[in-house]
Amino acid sequence: MTEPRETLFWWLAGAMKFGPGALGEIGADAAGLGLARVLVVSDRQVVEAGVAARAVDALTAAGVGAQLYADVGIEPTDESLVAAHEATRGLRVDGIVAVGGGSVIDTAKAVNLLRTNGGELLDYVNAPVGAGRAPHAPLLPLIAAPTTAGSGSESSAVCVMDLTALHLKSGISHPALRPRLSVIDPLTTLGLPREATISSGLDVLSHTLESLTASRFDARPRSVGGRPTYCGSNPVSDPLCREALRLLGRSFRKTVDDGDDVAARTDMMLAATLTAIGSSTAGVHIPHACSYSVAAQVHDYRPPGFPQGRPFVPHGNAVAATLPATLRYVAPTVPDAQRSALDALVGAGVAGASEVGERLAAGVVDLMRDIGAPRGLAEFGYATHDLPSLVDGSLKQQRLLAGAPRPVDADVLGRILAESLHNW
Amino acid sequence: MTEPRETLFWWLAGAMKFGPGALGEIGADAAGLGLARVLVVSDRQVVEAGVAARAVDALTAAGVGAQLYADVGIEPTDESLVAAHEATRGLRVDGIVAVGGGSVIDTAKAVNLLRTNGGELLDYVNAPVGAGRAPHAPLLPLIAAPTTAGSGSESSAVCVMDLTALHLKSGISHPALRPRLSVIDPLTTLGLPREATISSGLDVLSHTLESLTASRFDARPRSVGGRPTYCGSNPVSDPLCREALRLLGRSFRKTVDDGDDVAARTDMMLAATLTAIGSSTAGVHIPHACSYSVAAQVHDYRPPGFPQGRPFVPHGNAVAATLPATLRYVAPTVPDAQRSALDALVGAGVAGASEVGERLAAGVVDLMRDIGAPRGLAEFGYATHDLPSLVDGSLKQQRLLAGAPRPVDADVLGRILAESLHNW
Repeated sequence: MTEPRETLFWWLAGAMKFGPGALGEIGADAAGLGLARVLVVSDRQVVEAGVAARAVDALTAAGVGAQLYADVGIEPTDESLVAAHEATRGLRVDGIVAVGGGSVIDTAKAVNLLRTNGGELLDYVNAPVGAGRAPHAPLLPLIAAPTTAGSGSESSAVCVMDLTALHLKSGISHPALRPRLSVIDPLTTLGLPREATISSGLDVLSHTLESLTASRFDARPRSVGGRPTYCGSNPVSDPLCREALRLLGRSFRKTVDDGDDVAARTDMMLAATLTAIGSSTAGVHIPHACSYSVAAQVHDYRPPGFPQGRPFVPHGNAVAATLPATLRYVAPTVPDAQRSALDALVGAGVAGASEVGERLAAGVVDLMRDIGAPRGLAEFGYATHDLPSLVDGSLKQQRLLAGAPRPVDADVLGRILAESLHNW
Repeated sequence: MTEPRETLFWWLAGAMKFGPGALGEIGADAAGLGLARVLVVSDRQVVEAGVAARAVDALTAAGVGAQLYADVGIEPTDESLVAAHEATRGLRVDGIVAVGGGSVIDTAKAVNLLRTNGGELLDYVNAPVGAGRAPHAPLLPLIAAPTTAGSGSESSAVCVMDLTALHLKSGISHPALRPRLSVIDPLTTLGLPREATISSGLDVLSHTLESLTASRFDARPRSVGGRPTYCGSNPVSDPLCREALRLLGRSFRKTVDDGDDVAARTDMMLAATLTAIGSSTAGVHIPHACSYSVAAQVHDYRPPGFPQGRPFVPHGNAVAATLPATLRYVAPTVPDAQRSALDALVGAGVAGASEVGERLAAGVVDLMRDIGAPRGLAEFGYATHDLPSLVDGSLKQQRLLAGAPRPVDADVLGRILAESLHNW
């Protein structure tokens, strides 16, 4: 008897407002949600760029009290999330506003969860690493204003963290984490340093291509007893991701060459938004699964152009490192998705190209090289002898690997990670 | 000094679940929203097709009490909405489930509004016809399960009605009306009569083409003091509407030829869904504005294939009647939107065609003729001497006409309506 296949897909995007100047209206938006006093979560870079102050000013002008917590570090850890909760739990607020990149928005989600539902962080972290418990009490309304064209956290139901002591990266995934409203203003990205522009853009590129090449919703086993967060590629996410890829192909290089190019910055922010809407329900697969171990097992890599502290691999760089090899591995599958992706990224002129999967991988490598992305895992300090451990760590991400359109086992991951040491 | 232009667009789609069999899970969905006892709003056709019972059974099986109100008539009037409210106001429920076409879902919205906020219907109807008052109290959670591939009401914030005594059609438009969740099951459309398939599909076709050709969000004056429901064509709605148009071009004829073609029915339901998501924020323009007076001023047209009672023009037929002439009128504008619409509807083979707007209008006429749509306003009983009154009525819909990409005055409407007496 064959396993019954899924017949449904779903869609959970929250409300969104997009455009230059949107941040200036965040006070009216908060007031419109009935909020009187909010916790503003941000980080030092966003504060120094004056962007957090624009949000606070807009809130105050609209009569919404705002208390700022700006100690979010890059790439949250279990410790940093708990510290943020401890530092803010005494504040009396009826809503949360996150102003920053994925690290800030994810921190705001964790703070929201712990403040409203109590317990320990690991109670909520996805099984088997944590207990995977669902929140029992409603969370506060969260408004997310992303300041990078990247993570998509403003539309997602996920909070990702390094579990430092365990040398693991994992996450919390529940629909209640999803921001009520995202306020997306491309002008907030104008001051973003070159390296952060590269890393966040690579995250968008990976999200887009992973969602497009994910196994289709109707190729999956039928879910029973509640729906998973990710449903696979589907007719709503596909056109949005293709459009995102077209914008990435057109403007990613430009934003790296000239960070003040407003039109290119707007394209990239829009690509991130379209991908976030599509990818947050369609899901991701191999590159994101590998990125968790790539990030968690880092030796002493301190990325140039980022605040120097503990060693870490910027999320987008970690994800994109295995993207070309993944695209080659999934090349025999989902040919329509790959052809449309190739058309969108490189242009319709190559529509007749044979070996679409190979060409798509090559197009991605061209783009990565042009923008100055890290060449591969070796650049983060990994060597062949690290591969078994990276494979083991990646295999733990079964929830993500289940989204791949071809079976993934240790051998497959070993080959993909080995190829990803040097992408060119 | 030039008027400041809008820089923002927005997005408000609620959660959605789509696919064959989705209706069977509506009980779990209602329970997941915390509902214990719901009012199920439906109509006789949906009851006779056994679809309302499937919803009630699914609710009951999930432990959600369900009380059925199935007296919704086609094309709601102010009287029918108030009657539905009066008949159900005594029921103690904590949520509403609408199972039916646009008439049913719109009725459920009005019932929800009146039950939770009191007052008279005209208090809430858009100004200047009504007082345009916003609800002050929260509405009950509404789950909408559409049974036609048509209205898009399951994603919209609008409730449309005939104001019988005034010989006007108008609506109520507020974000609070939007269903919390739409459960979209293409299998519910298998029993839909041919004429309802045509009319509802024509509504999708019009929504799609109106949204694609609507003035862009950033070509509009900057909104101050709250955002309108409709923001104009934008980068999120455009790809969704283009994909919908591709599905319409592929499957509209098939569903009319063979109502049991599940793949074609699924395509059409998906087209309706994509359009609903996109169009419910992008908005519509001339054809919808004209449809209001075409519907409200009907003499004694009783459409073949529909329940015979009072004279009326099915909404989709009323809308599509002025679609070809509208496309010709807007032909000099939004050329990119029209070219991509032509590619999507007719196929990329005509991408090089000159006079894209004309070709698009011709493609729409071909499709309408093939599916057996009414030939034009004359078929509804209108003649040249009716045009001044139709123009007057359409001019009242300034909220919709503001979305057109070219200026619209009485002369323009007169020409469009005259051309629309006979589309072929």
